[in-house]
Amino acid sequence: MKTFPGKFITFEGGEGTGKSTQIKLLSEVLANCGIKNISTKEPGGTEAGLEIRKLLVTGDKDKMDAVAEALLYFADRRIHMAQKVWPALAENTWVLSDRFADSTFAYQYYGYNKRVPEKVLKELYKISVEDFKPDLTIILDLDPKIGLSRSFAKADNMAVKELRFESRDLEFHHNLRNGYLEIAKQEPGRCVVLDADKPIEDLHNDIVNLVMERFEGELCRS
Amino acid sequence: MKTFPGKFITFEGGEGTGKSTQIKLLSEVLANCGIKNISTKEPGGTEAGLEIRKLLVTGDKDKMDAVAEALLYFADRRIHMAQKVWPALAENTWVLSDRFADSTFAYQYYGYNKRVPEKVLKELYKISVEDFKPDLTIILDLDPKIGLSRSFAKADNMAVKELRFESRDLEFHHNLRNGYLEIAKQEPGRCVVLDADKPIEDLHNDIVNLVMERFEGELCRS
Repeated sequence: MKTFPGKFITFEGGEGTGKSTQIKLLSEVLANCGIKNISTKEPGGTEAGLEIRKLLVTGDKDKMDAVAEALLYFADRRIHMAQKVWPALAENTWVLSDRFADSTFAYQYYGYNKRVPEKVLKELYKISVEDFKPDLTIILDLDPKIGLSRSFAKADNMAVKELRFESRDLEFHHNLRNGYLEIAKQEPGRCVVLDADKPIEDLHNDIVNLVMERFEGELCRS
Repeated sequence: MKTFPGKFITFEGGEGTGKSTQIKLLSEVLANCGIKNISTKEPGGTEAGLEIRKLLVTGDKDKMDAVAEALLYFADRRIHMAQKVWPALAENTWVLSDRFADSTFAYQYYGYNKRVPEKVLKELYKISVEDFKPDLTIILDLDPKIGLSRSFAKADNMAVKELRFESRDLEFHHNLRNGYLEIAKQEPGRCVVLDADKPIEDLHNDIVNLVMERFEGELCRS
């Protein structure tokens, strides 16, 4: 199995659950503890990946089917792993990623009511990520109604509106939320579900406590 | 197995073997016989596919690895099949495609000296193309030295230079050629190898004769 000195922490959850905000806050805490870290995202964590991201998150929701989407997500992921995540981890830099493979399972499998077989997604995972897994996955759980309203409010200020997934119906987003919870149940050692309806600072404290506990000995105590 | 009333004919071969020229000529002959047909290409046979094509054929040759490339080719292929090829074939329109899956096997498996396992490419084929296959594959065979010089000459007149693959070394292109020949050997029922070093008109006549013979009864005799 691929192992590295750096830790790979992924943030998962539906639209508007606060992943990027929480990554920013955690990154600062880690840096203050003297832990070199980078923040990244999927899709679009690399230059080539940004072009794939544009293809995936803009435009009509029917521009491609769920199988094509899954292939593109895993193409982006492969480039992300090979060019950015693995090299950083190998140098003992921690990597915080806004979304990773669980999102593909949650959106393409659970969100679309299993239109892409789980087996296919598992094959694609193996092809692009090999036997590698995150050290910790933090799932931010939130009622999709609250998340979507946050997400649409944010998009009002965006030049390019990345709302291809937000425009799907509420049932899709409920499936998505349940999908993340199902994934967490299947891999309790890797995944921790946190309540994302809390104030930002409270959620941040939960995350810091979790990371402190999980990687005790590698982190300072402040 | 997916079957359709229309015929799917793919043209394969290295750079500068004359695929697009021969497709144009065959398309005219078919139309004159009253056979409705469309010409298409991979990558980039659809709107979303054109963006994937740009990603694949421009820029630095090391911008992504062979696994990522394979995933992108099959994403493009899936969109191409679902949005364009299968719907046309279902309406009894013949489809002539400039490249198809054999190119992915030739480039990503044979060209790169088997850096992507054949098993992986076969899994990706099944995920994106299912159990569907072309009715006929015409492989245009040519010494890569001749093909590449034609290809570079053509690129001089192109606004966007699609030379990411041409810039690989001659060994790559020899592997590629041998790859196509190997594929033809493995599937003699589907694949026919033609000598692409002939004058355009002679090669065209070979192709028309081949298509006449293969789909006798469905074609007029002119």
